[in-house]
Amino acid sequence: MILAKVIGHVVATQKCDELRGSNLLLIAALDDEQQLIKDKTWVAVDSVGAGLHDIVLVEVRFALGKGLYKAMSVVAIVENVFRDR
Amino acid sequence: MILAKVIGHVVATQKCDELRGSNLLLIAALDDEQQLIKDKTWVAVDSVGAGLHDIVLVEVRFALGKGLYKAMSVVAIVENVFRDR
Amino acid sequence: MILAKVIGHVVATQKCDELRGSNLLLIAALDDEQQLIKDKTWVAVDSVGAGLHDIVLVEVRFALGKGLYKAMSVVAIVENVFRDR
Amino acid sequence: MILAKVIGHVVATQKCDELRGSNLLLIAALDDEQQLIKDKTWVAVDSVGAGLHDIVLVEVRFALGKGLYKAMSVVAIVENVFRDR
Amino acid sequence: MILAKVIGHVVATQKCDELRGSNLLLIAALDDEQQLIKDKTWVAVDSVGAGLHDIVLVEVRFALGKGLYKAMSVVAIVENVFRDR
Repeated sequence: MILAKVIGHVVATQKCDELRGSNLLLIAALDDEQQLIKDKTWVAVDSVGAGLHDIVLVEVRFALGKGLYKAMSVVAIVENVFRDR
Repeated sequence: MILAKVIGHVVATQKCDELRGSNLLLIAALDDEQQLIKDKTWVAVDSVGAGLHDIVLVEVRFALGKGLYKAMSVVAIVENVFRDR
Repeated sequence: MILAKVIGHVVATQKCDELRGSNLLLIAALDDEQQLIKDKTWVAVDSVGAGLHDIVLVEVRFALGKGLYKAMSVVAIVENVFRDR
Repeated sequence: MILAKVIGHVVATQKCDELRGSNLLLIAALDDEQQLIKDKTWVAVDSVGAGLHDIVLVEVRFALGKGLYKAMSVVAIVENVFRDR
Repeated sequence: MILAKVIGHVVATQKCDELRGSNLLLIAALDDEQQLIKDKTWVAVDSVGAGLHDIVLVEVRFALGKGLYKAMSVVAIVENVFRDR
Protein backbone atom coordinates (compact mmCIF):
# COMPACT_ATOMS: atom_id res chain seq x y z
CA MET A 1 0.00 0.00 0.00
CA ILE A 2 1.12 3.56 -0.57
CA LEU A 3 0.58 6.78 1.35
CA ALA A 4 -1.40 9.18 -0.81
CA LYS A 5 -3.55 12.30 -0.61
CA VAL A 6 -7.06 12.72 -1.95
CA ILE A 7 -6.81 15.64 -4.42
CA GLY A 8 -10.13 15.43 -6.24
CA HIS A 9 -12.60 13.10 -7.85
CA VAL A 10 -13.73 11.85 -11.22
CA VAL A 11 -17.21 11.80 -12.77
CA ALA A 12 -17.98 8.91 -15.09
CA THR A 13 -21.51 7.82 -15.97
CA GLN A 14 -20.56 5.15 -18.48
CA LYS A 15 -18.63 2.54 -16.50
CA CYS A 16 -18.34 -1.20 -16.04
CA ASP A 17 -20.69 -2.92 -13.62
CA GLU A 18 -18.08 -3.45 -10.92
CA LEU A 19 -17.67 0.33 -10.53
CA ARG A 20 -21.38 1.22 -10.28
CA GLY A 21 -22.20 3.16 -7.13
CA SER A 22 -18.50 3.68 -6.40
CA ASN A 23 -16.94 6.97 -5.41
CA LEU A 24 -13.97 7.54 -7.73
CA LEU A 25 -11.28 9.52 -5.91
CA LEU A 26 -8.30 11.21 -7.53
CA ILE A 27 -5.31 10.39 -5.34
CA ALA A 28 -1.66 11.49 -5.58
CA ALA A 29 1.27 9.58 -4.08
CA LEU A 30 3.26 11.27 -1.29
CA ASP A 31 7.06 11.36 -1.08
CA ASP A 32 9.10 10.90 2.12
CA GLU A 33 8.43 14.54 3.10
CA GLN A 34 4.68 13.97 2.57
CA GLN A 35 4.64 16.18 -0.53
CA LEU A 36 2.70 15.23 -3.66
CA ILE A 37 4.77 13.46 -6.32
CA LYS A 38 4.27 14.95 -9.80
CA ASP A 39 2.49 12.68 -12.30
CA LYS A 40 1.94 9.92 -9.73
CA THR A 41 -1.80 10.35 -9.74
CA TRP A 42 -4.35 7.53 -9.86
CA VAL A 43 -8.06 7.01 -9.55
CA ALA A 44 -9.12 4.73 -6.70
CA VAL A 45 -12.46 3.47 -5.43
CA ASP A 46 -13.31 4.78 -1.98
CA SER A 47 -14.14 2.06 0.55
CA VAL A 48 -13.74 4.00 3.80
CA GLY A 49 -15.50 7.35 3.31
CA ALA A 50 -12.38 9.41 2.60
CA GLY A 51 -12.74 13.15 1.89
CA LEU A 52 -10.81 15.79 -0.03
CA HIS A 53 -7.24 16.36 1.32
CA ASP A 54 -7.33 13.26 3.56
CA ILE A 55 -4.10 11.28 3.81
CA VAL A 56 -5.01 7.72 2.89
CA LEU A 57 -3.63 4.24 2.31
CA VAL A 58 -4.19 3.00 -1.22
CA GLU A 59 -3.77 -0.54 -2.45
CA VAL A 60 -2.37 0.13 -5.91
CA ARG A 61 -2.57 -3.49 -6.99
CA PHE A 62 -5.96 -4.84 -7.67
CA ALA A 63 -7.76 -6.49 -4.82
CA LEU A 64 -9.80 -9.63 -5.01
CA GLY A 65 -12.83 -9.94 -2.79
CA LYS A 66 -14.32 -13.43 -2.67
CA GLY A 67 -13.69 -14.19 -6.33
CA LEU A 68 -14.97 -10.85 -7.56
CA TYR A 69 -12.83 -8.23 -9.16
CA LYS A 70 -12.29 -5.07 -7.11
CA ALA A 71 -10.53 -2.01 -8.55
CA MET A 72 -7.65 -0.07 -6.99
CA SER A 73 -9.01 1.09 -3.61
CA VAL A 74 -8.55 3.53 -0.77
CA VAL A 75 -8.37 1.09 2.17
CA ALA A 76 -7.72 3.36 5.19
CA ILE A 77 -7.68 6.99 6.33
CA VAL A 78 -4.34 7.80 7.98
CA GLU A 79 -4.25 9.81 11.21
CA ASN A 80 -0.57 9.67 12.01
CA VAL A 81 2.64 8.54 10.37
CA PHE A 82 5.52 7.75 12.75
CA ARG A 83 8.83 7.76 10.96
CA ASP A 84 12.14 6.90 12.62
CA ARG A 85 14.82 5.93 10.17
CA MET B 1 -6.75 2.86 -12.26
CA ILE B 2 -5.13 5.51 -14.40
CA LEU B 3 -6.51 8.40 -16.43
CA ALA B 4 -5.74 7.82 -20.09
CA LYS B 5 -6.79 8.91 -23.57
CA VAL B 6 -7.86 6.65 -26.42
CA ILE B 7 -5.38 7.41 -29.24
CA GLY B 8 -6.04 4.57 -31.68
CA HIS B 9 -6.65 0.87 -31.99
CA VAL B 10 -4.90 -2.35 -32.88
CA VAL B 11 -5.84 -5.03 -35.42
CA ALA B 12 -4.92 -8.60 -34.56
CA THR B 13 -6.56 -11.63 -36.16
CA GLN B 14 -4.39 -14.24 -34.47
CA LYS B 15 -5.12 -13.91 -30.77
CA CYS B 16 -5.81 -16.02 -27.69
CA ASP B 17 -9.39 -17.10 -27.02
CA GLU B 18 -9.95 -14.65 -24.17
CA LEU B 19 -9.47 -11.72 -26.57
CA ARG B 20 -11.83 -12.92 -29.33
CA GLY B 21 -14.52 -10.37 -30.16
CA SER B 22 -12.72 -7.71 -28.11
CA ASN B 23 -12.06 -4.18 -29.25
CA LEU B 24 -8.36 -3.49 -28.69
CA LEU B 25 -7.83 0.20 -27.92
CA LEU B 26 -4.51 2.01 -27.95
CA ILE B 27 -4.47 4.19 -24.84
CA ALA B 28 -1.89 6.69 -23.56
CA ALA B 29 -1.51 7.73 -19.91
CA LEU B 30 -2.19 11.39 -19.03
CA ASP B 31 0.01 13.52 -16.77
CA ASP B 32 -1.27 15.99 -14.14
CA GLU B 33 -1.94 18.60 -16.86
CA GLN B 34 -3.92 15.99 -18.85
CA GLN B 35 -1.23 15.79 -21.53
CA LEU B 36 -0.16 12.47 -23.06
CA ILE B 37 2.94 10.95 -21.44
CA LYS B 38 5.53 9.82 -24.01
CA ASP B 39 6.03 6.05 -24.25
CA LYS B 40 3.33 5.30 -21.69
CA THR B 41 1.09 3.63 -24.23
CA TRP B 42 -0.79 0.37 -23.71
CA VAL B 43 -3.38 -1.74 -25.43
CA ALA B 44 -6.56 -2.29 -23.42
CA VAL B 45 -9.77 -4.19 -24.03
CA ASP B 46 -12.78 -1.92 -24.30
CA SER B 47 -15.63 -2.83 -21.96
CA VAL B 48 -17.62 0.41 -22.03
CA GLY B 49 -17.87 1.47 -25.69
CA ALA B 50 -15.12 4.10 -25.60
CA GLY B 51 -14.27 6.02 -28.79
CA LEU B 52 -11.22 7.77 -30.22
CA HIS B 53 -10.00 10.71 -28.07
CA ASP B 54 -12.20 9.80 -25.11
CA ILE B 55 -10.68 10.28 -21.65
CA VAL B 56 -11.03 6.94 -19.90
CA LEU B 57 -10.21 5.03 -16.73
CA VAL B 58 -7.97 2.02 -17.36
CA GLU B 59 -7.25 -0.77 -14.94
CA VAL B 60 -3.60 -1.45 -15.79
CA ARG B 61 -3.40 -4.53 -13.60
CA PHE B 62 -5.14 -7.59 -14.85
CA ALA B 63 -8.69 -8.09 -13.75
CA LEU B 64 -10.25 -11.32 -12.70
CA GLY B 65 -13.87 -11.93 -13.51
CA LYS B 66 -15.36 -14.99 -11.86
CA GLY B 67 -12.23 -17.10 -12.17
CA LEU B 68 -11.61 -16.20 -15.80
CA TYR B 69 -8.70 -14.20 -17.01
CA LYS B 70 -9.54 -10.70 -18.27
CA ALA B 71 -6.93 -8.51 -19.96
CA MET B 72 -6.09 -4.90 -19.14
CA SER B 73 -9.37 -3.02 -19.64
CA VAL B 74 -10.94 0.35 -20.17
CA VAL B 75 -13.44 0.39 -17.28
CA ALA B 76 -15.07 3.85 -17.52
CA ILE B 77 -15.43 6.91 -19.76
CA VAL B 78 -14.53 10.06 -17.84
CA GLU B 79 -16.72 13.17 -18.18
CA ASN B 80 -15.08 15.42 -15.64
CA VAL B 81 -11.99 15.47 -13.46
CA PHE B 82 -12.17 17.73 -10.40
CA ARG B 83 -8.73 18.51 -9.05
CA ASP B 84 -8.11 20.57 -5.92
CA ARG B 85 -4.70 20.02 -4.43
CA MET C 1 -1.06 -5.28 -22.53
CA ILE C 2 1.97 -3.79 -24.22
CA LEU C 3 3.10 -3.66 -27.83
CA ALA C 4 6.34 -5.59 -28.19
CA LYS C 5 8.54 -7.28 -30.76
CA VAL C 6 9.79 -10.85 -30.68
CA ILE C 7 13.60 -10.55 -30.72
CA GLY C 8 14.68 -14.08 -29.85
CA HIS C 9 14.01 -17.02 -27.59
CA VAL C 10 15.32 -18.73 -24.48
CA VAL C 11 16.33 -22.37 -23.94
CA ALA C 12 15.71 -23.80 -20.48
CA THR C 13 15.51 -27.53 -19.78
CA GLN C 14 15.14 -27.23 -16.01
CA LYS C 15 11.87 -25.42 -15.46
CA CYS C 16 8.77 -25.53 -13.31
CA ASP C 17 5.90 -27.77 -14.40
CA GLU C 18 3.71 -24.90 -15.58
CA LEU C 19 6.28 -23.98 -18.24
CA ARG C 20 6.81 -27.49 -19.68
CA GLY C 21 6.17 -27.63 -23.42
CA SER C 22 6.06 -23.82 -23.63
CA ASN C 23 7.86 -21.76 -26.21
CA LEU C 24 9.80 -19.06 -24.32
CA LEU C 25 10.05 -15.92 -26.45
CA LEU C 26 12.37 -12.99 -25.81
CA ILE C 27 10.28 -9.87 -26.36
CA ALA C 28 11.23 -6.19 -26.23
CA ALA C 29 8.79 -3.34 -25.54
CA LEU C 30 8.19 -0.79 -28.35
CA ASP C 31 8.09 2.96 -27.85
CA ASP C 32 5.61 5.34 -29.53
CA GLU C 33 7.69 5.29 -32.75
CA GLN C 34 7.64 1.45 -32.69
CA GLN C 35 11.35 1.29 -31.84
CA LEU C 36 12.73 -1.17 -29.27
CA ILE C 37 13.16 0.30 -25.78
CA LYS C 38 16.57 -0.46 -24.27
CA ASP C 39 16.54 -2.84 -21.29
CA LYS C 40 12.78 -3.38 -21.48
CA THR C 41 13.15 -7.01 -22.45
CA TRP C 42 11.13 -9.88 -20.99
CA VAL C 43 10.57 -13.57 -21.55
CA ALA C 44 6.98 -14.53 -22.37
CA VAL C 45 5.22 -17.78 -23.08
CA ASP C 46 3.91 -17.99 -26.64
CA SER C 47 0.21 -18.84 -26.88
CA VAL C 48 -0.50 -17.77 -30.46
CA GLY C 49 2.35 -19.14 -32.62
CA ALA C 50 4.34 -15.91 -32.85
CA GLY C 51 7.61 -15.90 -34.82
CA LEU C 52 10.83 -13.89 -34.78
CA HIS C 53 10.34 -10.14 -35.49
CA ASP C 54 6.55 -10.32 -35.14
CA ILE C 55 4.87 -7.36 -33.44
CA VAL C 56 2.82 -8.84 -30.61
CA LEU C 57 0.59 -7.99 -27.67
CA VAL C 58 2.01 -9.16 -24.36
CA GLU C 59 0.19 -9.37 -21.07
CA VAL C 60 2.98 -8.35 -18.69
CA ARG C 61 0.98 -9.16 -15.56
CA PHE C 62 0.45 -12.75 -14.83
CA ALA C 63 -2.67 -14.32 -16.20
CA LEU C 64 -4.87 -16.77 -14.44
CA GLY C 65 -6.56 -19.49 -16.44
CA LYS C 66 -9.17 -21.47 -14.55
CA GLY C 67 -7.35 -21.40 -11.24
CA LEU C 68 -4.00 -22.37 -12.70
CA TYR C 69 -1.00 -20.16 -12.81
CA LYS C 70 -0.01 -18.94 -16.27
CA ALA C 71 3.19 -17.01 -16.90
CA MET C 72 3.57 -13.71 -18.76
CA SER C 73 2.22 -14.45 -22.25
CA VAL C 74 2.14 -13.32 -25.84
CA VAL C 75 -1.63 -13.06 -26.37
CA ALA C 76 -1.95 -11.73 -29.96
CA ILE C 77 0.00 -11.08 -33.16
CA VAL C 78 -0.50 -7.48 -34.29
CA GLU C 79 -1.14 -6.73 -37.96
CA ASN C 80 -1.81 -3.03 -37.79
CA VAL C 81 -1.58 -0.22 -35.27
CA PHE C 82 -3.77 2.83 -35.97
CA ARG C 83 -2.59 5.85 -34.06
CA ASP C 84 -4.35 9.21 -34.13
CA ARG C 85 -3.50 11.39 -31.19
CA MET D 1 9.88 -9.92 -2.71
CA ILE D 2 12.09 -6.98 -1.86
CA LEU D 3 14.57 -6.34 0.92
CA ALA D 4 13.33 -3.44 3.03
CA LYS D 5 13.76 -1.84 6.44
CA VAL D 6 11.03 -1.05 8.95
CA ILE D 7 11.26 2.73 9.47
CA GLY D 8 8.03 3.46 11.32
CA HIS D 9 4.33 2.75 11.48
CA VAL D 10 1.01 4.24 10.54
CA VAL D 11 -2.08 4.86 12.69
CA ALA D 12 -5.45 4.54 10.95
CA THR D 13 -8.69 3.96 12.82
CA GLN D 14 -10.97 4.15 9.80
CA LYS D 15 -9.98 1.22 7.60
CA CYS D 16 -11.47 -1.57 5.53
CA ASP D 17 -12.39 -4.82 7.27
CA GLU D 18 -9.45 -6.77 5.86
CA LEU D 19 -7.01 -4.47 7.69
CA ARG D 20 -8.69 -4.59 11.14
CA GLY D 21 -6.31 -5.74 13.85
CA SER D 22 -3.34 -5.40 11.51
CA ASN D 23 -0.08 -3.72 12.40
CA LEU D 24 0.67 -1.21 9.61
CA LEU D 25 4.42 -0.86 9.18
CA LEU D 26 6.18 1.87 7.22
CA ILE D 27 8.89 0.14 5.20
CA ALA D 28 11.57 1.55 2.88
CA ALA D 29 13.26 -0.40 0.09
CA LEU D 30 17.01 -1.03 0.38
CA ASP D 31 19.51 -0.58 -2.45
CA ASP D 32 22.41 -2.94 -3.22
CA GLU D 33 24.48 -1.35 -0.43
CA GLN D 34 21.58 -1.87 2.01
CA GLN D 35 20.86 1.86 2.18
CA LEU D 36 17.32 3.26 2.15
CA ILE D 37 16.11 4.33 -1.30
CA LYS D 38 14.52 7.80 -1.28
CA ASP D 39 10.77 7.86 -1.95
CA LYS D 40 10.52 4.07 -2.15
CA THR D 41 8.42 3.85 1.01
CA TRP D 42 5.32 1.70 1.42
CA VAL D 43 2.94 0.60 4.13
CA ALA D 44 2.79 -3.15 4.69
CA VAL D 45 0.83 -5.40 7.02
CA ASP D 46 3.04 -7.20 9.52
CA SER D 47 2.59 -10.97 9.55
CA VAL D 48 5.77 -12.02 11.37
CA GLY D 49 6.15 -9.70 14.37
CA ALA D 50 8.72 -7.35 12.82
CA GLY D 51 10.02 -4.41 14.85
CA LEU D 52 11.47 -0.97 14.13
CA HIS D 53 14.74 -1.08 12.12
CA ASP D 54 14.41 -4.79 11.28
CA ILE D 55 15.50 -5.82 7.78
CA VAL D 56 12.53 -7.64 6.27
CA LEU D 57 11.23 -9.32 3.16
CA VAL D 58 8.15 -7.63 1.74
CA GLU D 59 5.84 -9.03 -0.87
CA VAL D 60 5.00 -5.84 -2.79
CA ARG D 61 2.35 -7.50 -4.91
CA PHE D 62 -0.84 -8.38 -3.19
CA ALA D 63 -1.10 -11.82 -1.74
CA LEU D 64 -4.09 -14.05 -1.90
CA GLY D 65 -4.84 -16.32 1.02
CA LYS D 66 -7.53 -18.89 0.34
CA GLY D 67 -9.68 -16.61 -1.76
CA LEU D 68 -9.45 -13.68 0.62
CA TYR D 69 -7.71 -10.45 -0.17
CA LYS D 70 -4.50 -9.79 1.80
CA ALA D 71 -2.69 -6.47 1.57
CA MET D 72 1.03 -5.92 0.87
CA SER D 73 2.79 -7.83 3.67
CA VAL D 74 6.01 -8.24 5.56
CA VAL D 75 6.58 -11.99 5.09
CA ALA D 76 9.96 -12.62 6.80
CA ILE D 77 12.55 -11.05 9.09
CA VAL D 78 15.99 -11.23 7.50
CA GLU D 79 19.00 -12.26 9.60
CA ASN D 80 21.65 -12.41 6.93
CA VAL D 81 22.08 -11.48 3.29
CA PHE D 82 24.85 -13.35 1.44
CA ARG D 83 25.83 -11.52 -1.72
CA ASP D 84 28.41 -12.84 -4.19
CA ARG D 85 28.12 -11.31 -7.61
CA MET E 1 9.22 -13.16 -16.63
CA ILE E 2 12.61 -11.49 -16.47
CA LEU E 3 16.11 -12.75 -17.10
CA ALA E 4 18.11 -12.55 -13.87
CA LYS E 5 21.21 -13.90 -12.20
CA VAL E 6 21.42 -15.60 -8.83
CA ILE E 7 23.84 -13.45 -6.80
CA GLY E 8 23.32 -14.78 -3.28
CA HIS E 9 20.76 -15.89 -0.76
CA VAL E 10 18.92 -14.70 2.30
CA VAL E 11 18.62 -16.31 5.75
CA ALA E 12 15.36 -15.75 7.61
CA THR E 13 14.17 -17.96 10.45
CA GLN E 14 11.08 -15.94 11.30
CA LYS E 15 8.87 -16.11 8.21
CA CYS E 16 5.28 -16.65 7.19
CA ASP E 17 4.02 -20.21 6.73
CA GLU E 18 3.99 -20.04 2.93
CA LEU E 19 7.77 -19.53 2.90
CA ARG E 20 8.71 -22.38 5.28
CA GLY E 21 11.18 -24.79 3.73
CA SER E 22 11.81 -22.41 0.82
CA ASN E 23 15.22 -21.50 -0.51
CA LEU E 24 15.33 -17.68 -0.68
CA LEU E 25 17.58 -16.59 -3.53
CA LEU E 26 18.92 -13.09 -4.09
CA ILE E 27 18.50 -12.38 -7.78
CA ALA E 28 19.52 -9.37 -9.88
CA ALA E 29 17.89 -8.36 -13.18
CA LEU E 30 20.06 -8.46 -16.33
CA ASP E 31 20.14 -5.75 -18.99
CA ASP E 32 20.27 -6.35 -22.77
CA GLU E 33 24.04 -7.03 -22.55
CA GLN E 34 23.42 -9.58 -19.76
CA GLN E 35 24.99 -7.30 -17.16
CA LEU E 36 23.51 -6.86 -13.67
CA ILE E 37 21.28 -3.79 -13.33
CA LYS E 38 22.11 -1.72 -10.24
CA ASP E 39 19.44 -1.73 -7.51
CA LYS E 40 17.20 -4.15 -9.41
CA THR E 41 17.65 -6.90 -6.85
CA TRP E 42 14.88 -9.08 -5.46
CA VAL E 43 14.44 -12.13 -3.29
CA ALA E 44 12.73 -15.06 -5.00
CA VAL E 45 11.74 -18.54 -3.90
CA ASP E 46 13.65 -21.25 -5.73
CA SER E 47 11.42 -23.85 -7.39
CA VAL E 48 13.93 -25.43 -9.80
CA GLY E 49 17.13 -26.03 -7.84
CA ALA E 50 19.02 -22.97 -9.10
CA GLY E 51 22.55 -22.31 -7.84
CA LEU E 52 24.79 -19.28 -7.36
CA HIS E 53 25.57 -17.42 -10.62
CA ASP E 54 22.95 -19.31 -12.64
CA ILE E 55 21.02 -17.30 -15.22
CA VAL E 56 17.35 -17.82 -14.41
CA LEU E 57 13.83 -16.85 -15.35
CA VAL E 58 11.97 -15.12 -12.55
CA GLU E 59 8.28 -14.45 -12.38
CA VAL E 60 8.28 -11.05 -10.66
CA ARG E 61 4.52 -10.94 -10.24
CA PHE E 62 3.06 -13.20 -7.66
CA ALA E 63 2.04 -16.63 -8.80
CA LEU E 64 -1.05 -18.46 -7.75
CA GLY E 65 -0.93 -22.21 -7.43
CA LYS E 66 -4.30 -23.86 -6.95
CA GLY E 67 -5.72 -21.09 -4.81
CA LEU E 68 -2.67 -20.81 -2.59
CA TYR E 69 -0.41 -17.84 -2.45
CA LYS E 70 3.08 -18.38 -3.89
CA ALA E 71 5.80 -15.77 -3.59
CA MET E 72 7.95 -14.35 -6.41
CA SER E 73 9.70 -17.41 -7.84
CA VAL E 74 12.61 -18.62 -9.93
CA VAL E 75 10.73 -20.69 -12.53
CA ALA E 76 13.52 -21.88 -14.90
CA ILE E 77 17.27 -22.15 -15.29
CA VAL E 78 18.37 -20.61 -18.60
CA GLU E 79 20.94 -22.40 -20.74
CA ASN E 80 20.94 -20.19 -23.80
CA VAL E 81 19.51 -16.85 -24.88
CA PHE E 82 19.16 -16.35 -28.65
CA ARG E 83 18.82 -12.69 -29.51
CA ASP E 84 18.27 -11.41 -33.04
CA ARG E 85 16.84 -7.93 -33.14
